[in-house]
Amino acid sequence: MKELINMGLKIVTIGGGSSYTPELVEGFIKRYDELPVSELWLVDIEEGKEKLEIIADLARRMVKKADVPIQIFTTLDRREALPGADFVTTQIRVGLLDARIKDERIPLKHGFIGQETNGAGGMFKALRTIPVILDINKDISELCPDAWMINFTNPSGMIEEALLKYGYTDKVIGLCNVPIGIEMGVAKLLGVAHDRVRVDFAGLNHMVFGLNVYLDGENITKRIIDDLASGKSASEVKNINDINWEPDFIRALGVIPCPYHRYYFMRDEMLQTELEEFKKGEVRAEVVSRLEKELFEIYKDKNLDIKPPQLEQRGGAYYSDAACRLINSIYNDKKDIQPVNTRNNGAITSLPHDCAVEVSSVITKDGPKPLSMGELPVAVNGLVQQIKSFERVTVEAAYEGSYEKALLALIINPLVASDKKAKILLDEMLEAHKKYLPKFFK
Amino acid sequence: MKELINMGLKIVTIGGGSSYTPELVEGFIKRYDELPVSELWLVDIEEGKEKLEIIADLARRMVKKADVPIQIFTTLDRREALPGADFVTTQIRVGLLDARIKDERIPLKHGFIGQETNGAGGMFKALRTIPVILDINKDISELCPDAWMINFTNPSGMIEEALLKYGYTDKVIGLCNVPIGIEMGVAKLLGVAHDRVRVDFAGLNHMVFGLNVYLDGENITKRIIDDLASGKSASEVKNINDINWEPDFIRALGVIPCPYHRYYFMRDEMLQTELEEFKKGEVRAEVVSRLEKELFEIYKDKNLDIKPPQLEQRGGAYYSDAACRLINSIYNDKKDIQPVNTRNNGAITSLPHDCAVEVSSVITKDGPKPLSMGELPVAVNGLVQQIKSFERVTVEAAYEGSYEKALLALIINPLVASDKKAKILLDEMLEAHKKYLPKFFK
Amino acid sequence: MKELINMGLKIVTIGGGSSYTPELVEGFIKRYDELPVSELWLVDIEEGKEKLEIIADLARRMVKKADVPIQIFTTLDRREALPGADFVTTQIRVGLLDARIKDERIPLKHGFIGQETNGAGGMFKALRTIPVILDINKDISELCPDAWMINFTNPSGMIEEALLKYGYTDKVIGLCNVPIGIEMGVAKLLGVAHDRVRVDFAGLNHMVFGLNVYLDGENITKRIIDDLASGKSASEVKNINDINWEPDFIRALGVIPCPYHRYYFMRDEMLQTELEEFKKGEVRAEVVSRLEKELFEIYKDKNLDIKPPQLEQRGGAYYSDAACRLINSIYNDKKDIQPVNTRNNGAITSLPHDCAVEVSSVITKDGPKPLSMGELPVAVNGLVQQIKSFERVTVEAAYEGSYEKALLALIINPLVASDKKAKILLDEMLEAHKKYLPKFFK
Amino acid sequence: MKELINMGLKIVTIGGGSSYTPELVEGFIKRYDELPVSELWLVDIEEGKEKLEIIADLARRMVKKADVPIQIFTTLDRREALPGADFVTTQIRVGLLDARIKDERIPLKHGFIGQETNGAGGMFKALRTIPVILDINKDISELCPDAWMINFTNPSGMIEEALLKYGYTDKVIGLCNVPIGIEMGVAKLLGVAHDRVRVDFAGLNHMVFGLNVYLDGENITKRIIDDLASGKSASEVKNINDINWEPDFIRALGVIPCPYHRYYFMRDEMLQTELEEFKKGEVRAEVVSRLEKELFEIYKDKNLDIKPPQLEQRGGAYYSDAACRLINSIYNDKKDIQPVNTRNNGAITSLPHDCAVEVSSVITKDGPKPLSMGELPVAVNGLVQQIKSFERVTVEAAYEGSYEKALLALIINPLVASDKKAKILLDEMLEAHKKYLPKFFK
Repeated sequence: MKELINMGLKIVTIGGGSSYTPELVEGFIKRYDELPVSELWLVDIEEGKEKLEIIADLARRMVKKADVPIQIFTTLDRREALPGADFVTTQIRVGLLDARIKDERIPLKHGFIGQETNGAGGMFKALRTIPVILDINKDISELCPDAWMINFTNPSGMIEEALLKYGYTDKVIGLCNVPIGIEMGVAKLLGVAHDRVRVDFAGLNHMVFGLNVYLDGENITKRIIDDLASGKSASEVKNINDINWEPDFIRALGVIPCPYHRYYFMRDEMLQTELEEFKKGEVRAEVVSRLEKELFEIYKDKNLDIKPPQLEQRGGAYYSDAACRLINSIYNDKKDIQPVNTRNNGAITSLPHDCAVEVSSVITKDGPKPLSMGELPVAVNGLVQQIKSFERVTVEAAYEGSYEKALLALIINPLVASDKKAKILLDEMLEAHKKYLPKFFK
Repeated sequence: MKELINMGLKIVTIGGGSSYTPELVEGFIKRYDELPVSELWLVDIEEGKEKLEIIADLARRMVKKADVPIQIFTTLDRREALPGADFVTTQIRVGLLDARIKDERIPLKHGFIGQETNGAGGMFKALRTIPVILDINKDISELCPDAWMINFTNPSGMIEEALLKYGYTDKVIGLCNVPIGIEMGVAKLLGVAHDRVRVDFAGLNHMVFGLNVYLDGENITKRIIDDLASGKSASEVKNINDINWEPDFIRALGVIPCPYHRYYFMRDEMLQTELEEFKKGEVRAEVVSRLEKELFEIYKDKNLDIKPPQLEQRGGAYYSDAACRLINSIYNDKKDIQPVNTRNNGAITSLPHDCAVEVSSVITKDGPKPLSMGELPVAVNGLVQQIKSFERVTVEAAYEGSYEKALLALIINPLVASDKKAKILLDEMLEAHKKYLPKFFK
Repeated sequence: MKELINMGLKIVTIGGGSSYTPELVEGFIKRYDELPVSELWLVDIEEGKEKLEIIADLARRMVKKADVPIQIFTTLDRREALPGADFVTTQIRVGLLDARIKDERIPLKHGFIGQETNGAGGMFKALRTIPVILDINKDISELCPDAWMINFTNPSGMIEEALLKYGYTDKVIGLCNVPIGIEMGVAKLLGVAHDRVRVDFAGLNHMVFGLNVYLDGENITKRIIDDLASGKSASEVKNINDINWEPDFIRALGVIPCPYHRYYFMRDEMLQTELEEFKKGEVRAEVVSRLEKELFEIYKDKNLDIKPPQLEQRGGAYYSDAACRLINSIYNDKKDIQPVNTRNNGAITSLPHDCAVEVSSVITKDGPKPLSMGELPVAVNGLVQQIKSFERVTVEAAYEGSYEKALLALIINPLVASDKKAKILLDEMLEAHKKYLPKFFK
Repeated sequence: MKELINMGLKIVTIGGGSSYTPELVEGFIKRYDELPVSELWLVDIEEGKEKLEIIADLARRMVKKADVPIQIFTTLDRREALPGADFVTTQIRVGLLDARIKDERIPLKHGFIGQETNGAGGMFKALRTIPVILDINKDISELCPDAWMINFTNPSGMIEEALLKYGYTDKVIGLCNVPIGIEMGVAKLLGVAHDRVRVDFAGLNHMVFGLNVYLDGENITKRIIDDLASGKSASEVKNINDINWEPDFIRALGVIPCPYHRYYFMRDEMLQTELEEFKKGEVRAEVVSRLEKELFEIYKDKNLDIKPPQLEQRGGAYYSDAACRLINSIYNDKKDIQPVNTRNNGAITSLPHDCAVEVSSVITKDGPKPLSMGELPVAVNGLVQQIKSFERVTVEAAYEGSYEKALLALIINPLVASDKKAKILLDEMLEAHKKYLPKFFK
């Protein structure tokens, strides 16, 4: 990392026009004393130009109000922004929310769960995003090879897997708001401050389990499981429907599931709920699309100079703050424990050593160092392995543009699992997303 | 093994009244020259007494016709039969076919696949059978500790898992007719004799894959995959509906699935087919029940002194012959390669070393020695891991009589995967099988 | 851990009459504000009674001088001391220094390296100590089952291995001053404060490597290797002869060895050096024996009320301070990183998951959580594995009192490796230590 | 493999002028009925031209006497011989016996064991041979890519490791006469035919253990261990001094060591024995050099038309026969069990999956399929790991021509283990072998 004399850190945010960016800006502002960001470059594509400028204007008002010397830049050319960057965050959406609406509605039309990061929808988001992310990573390797790339684009786990397997730099970390949401949910459940709670996280992105929960360092896992069994929620992240767990099941499971596990342990109920939303034209992407529009209206307000409270309902709360926290810990070698997506390296002994996992790690200037979690409990190992197989085949399909591998990935996904219907679904989705899948249509 | 002077081998068959037994008898007759069986003890329970005598009478006519000095004994007390046994085969059905009918119909009633060895049905067959099998194994450990126990009771993989984890002797091998059926199917496809074909099998029982196919030692896997893709069948075992594989899928899969994989890769189609059978009162168990009755009518015929050809339609063809082949190879230290269920011991590197797997093994007098298969291909590893998790939790549930673990097993099974419906299903099935689940109702 | 209202922590130190104890007392005094020890029980055996009282008196003067309310107790009956303990430290020497003199001199007499923790000497120290340590652990499991047992009795790695394999409680941690000595040595080399340096430690006790060295979080391993190659020392612990490393070797090794690696990478030179000391009657144990006597003379001085500076020359410097630091981090859930001996649990992927390793770990109230270190570099993996084999066979020999396993352990040790001479050596050492090896002479 | 219509197999033997070749020719003659070799190409280098012609003439007399239509060809240009080859055997000696004399004498001069395949001598043989073997393998990949390469050049394990890591074709198998010698030794001990005995071999080349011994399929390991303990020999291979094992040691070891283990378990005695031979100018290479000269005199005899009995004393007995046996089993898809050097692939779970091991394997037309051996016993795992580390570092040193890695390999070898002396030794040996180490002197 370059010597900092009269200058601070340079951050580049690819997808800077995202509605999440104000949280990121707020995160940098409140940490300014220990994390002296001097330049924040917001990068976006032509289609996002208008949003980018709205965000940049708001950001400038925010730093002005906070009276910190962070300069905000915008560009549509990431290669202009990257040189000299210390950290690059990526929060892109290839195909914008329209593509997400398709990811959710088309599977539902065929009777399958339609979701942004799981099943057919998650696979297509990966197929569209991975080639773009790899291109960004290539530019980083050329223009700012020492920078850390912090990705919070979904599906974060598959993107980390792709970066580890096909990427150009090693300094790539994936982030998600789900684990931090669980820790905050547990803290809320206990009525204590977040920093008194720690959870041992192990698994994959959106497939992560809390193996142990600690309050002031004491293991209180059983108590939290009992709370879950009695219908309490242990997650502050409300991205998906929050149906109660079956008490006997959660007790036998013995670990804390994440909200997304509902797709795998409550498959029918989740599907029914989604099908109702589908009929009403209210699948999550459609709801988010409306929320986004409202948010940008709010952001345009020249009098707004803080992150507006409405953003927290957006679903991705804590994402950007988690990113700032991570950047801060790397920059200051804090050695605190955070759950991130990184190379397994034996931390979860039952998963391949070279694959991407989501795991509690000590965050150092040299990057995340996963804590040894041992074997996954037998009851959850199988599902995690199955999703890892799906992820690995999907990543290969995305990289190679392979129709056969995409079909294979879809069929081995436990939310699809039906070969002939999978093929029909695949063909329709490929056609729908054709514009963003050049590798499949060359 | 005892010295054979004027005496031959003693075989004890628990569940001797099974309709399969004539195949077993035929197997011993045709191998008599190298496998000198002198005593075959057929053991059954009180409810099976009539069938037992029908089978024993047929067996006596068969050995008489073949002019081999195999003596047939019957008993309802296995402890009378076991002393001095060299091999004990187990082919029991706790709850008889009535229980199987429930295993198939009750899940279907709730919209889940109902099947003898998979999903809820497979789990309940395991819950009923494991305690009984462990008791048999305990008797063996006392009365004939050097005997090999050859199990072909379903679900064969979970039973092997239970025997390895909770059993009293190490000499336990599980058998299935699925892999041998695939080898024979490939041979038929190629129009060659079975012994020119060899398949590298790796996976779990009813979850086994053919990783490589050889003709006269040459790897012809790709050619067989292409045959499968063009709609040909590579299995001689017709226990389940033989729907064609999706060509692009099977090519991307790259290995030979077993017929039961249809439940996981064609979930919807298989369910629809079963639901139609359900409505007609023709689920597999009901069909088998009728076939059984017809078979026993045939067996009663005093003029019948060979295995009747109708047995081959029964579904379990080659099971008993596979058992004779295995016994022969152990007894004569043949060192030929056969797929069996045994302790993994590193043969499939991605599965725990101590778990039961179905794997091509060299058969020696000292038992099966698995061939190293390396890692499972990434596309299939996940599903195999998931079923292994299900198996391990089920085995614990059976051993402990744990309601919570049974519920957990059901929910992590990819054919169920819905917690609230799983609980309803579990409760109904527990009640239906109450008589055979003493550990759950103590 | 019990609620602390008006009371502080209770520490029990088995082997309290050790010359190291003043460092321990000093450690508690200087941490009193955050680690409120109210009772320190010093336990020793009859033969150590006089030393125990000298130490206890000094300790009382020290706490008085420091004006902290730590009460010092002594007893010859550990079962009197243990009830209610929060932490039990063990620093015993079965057979006292006389036994160590034999451990060093007898092997040298036969031309083998004679050393407290390596080779034949290390093995005999383990054989004498393990049964006693297991008895202590058994008492802890009965009298204060929630207490953490912190062992710094040598050979610390084999003792941890024995506790993990045969012990009665899980809360057992082994400590050594070698890794902390390396960190301090590196800091000294760099001229910076210790807390700016961090080393990734992985291996076994006295067989640990520094895989990476960080200054303020930046990886400076190569720079430190170059320093070692140019003859600088990276260890503040001077227990053994500090011969320079061969520059080309250390560069190819690529990681930081610990001082004890000289026995394995400079076998001949170390042996020659020791043989000279042997002839002069100045083997390390003899030197230490004299130092001890001098120390106790100093300790007797009624005017002494601090840890005397002479103690730092004793060889075990930082041992006790490391123990206090560890206790403090557990008590206060500090989540700092310390190297300890604990269960591997996958942290070093190339070693068995259940064995004892020495590894950088995050220290929490719930105990140490090892950081994932991945595979050991190929160049050092072999030696570490070999010593782990030696350790495991030795631990079994100690537990079973097995002559054959003791012989086996000696022969597979790379410092012995000669079967007939090993047997002669073994017989002589067994006879010499007969009194302390009841399991071998029953 | 090509279709055989009017033609038989083509074998190419690189190093055809070796004194072992008559055994190879005999092996092909006696198997002619099932292994129809039509062409045997003997290839050698200019310096070996005279020997090559002597051998070729003898071979021609042998096939004529046996009346089999095997044609013998000679060439000094392997690229002339390779096209169309079905099997290529390699039995080369880079630097001839003069180099081996240096490999043995120079280490002994410095007080280290001097041996062809172990310690410094083994390392230098690897450094000289690996680049040449890789070149041969490259030619094979171009000129006869479907051919199997069967290497019995020493050090066979490191060469297999190099071929697996840096080679151009996958069809590479390493052979050694040590395991077959043990099986034959056990058979002799028992007074039974070789084919009634089977040993489970696992380990590395010249570092292989017999984990279990079977007579007619029954496990008689304990009985053989007792025989070894009572001073009997279980090896027919007499390459090295056959000192008796210490009875208590061998019983505790519990597995059958190979003769070369004496270097690691009887280090001092072996060194003393060698030092005496050194003084007398009778190190093994010198003895062999004389034997070779005598053999070639015998081979020249125009009346000799069989393999002369004197060859069996040469030390490498059974090597060539083992090669013929292996070729025969591959060609005829025999599926018999033979110990070979091949990729581990999980067969020995405690070793890396991708490294070369020596392990009992089923030999098929598709190559060797290792039997799962599970974990190595703890007592031997360490030494095997250490030698594997040495092998891997040596292979890298050979490939890269790295002085530092060569020094590292030497120091981590347990027969050297002394850094400063290792450097002196390394420098002297590099100079002595300069001509054959172009990568180190570029």
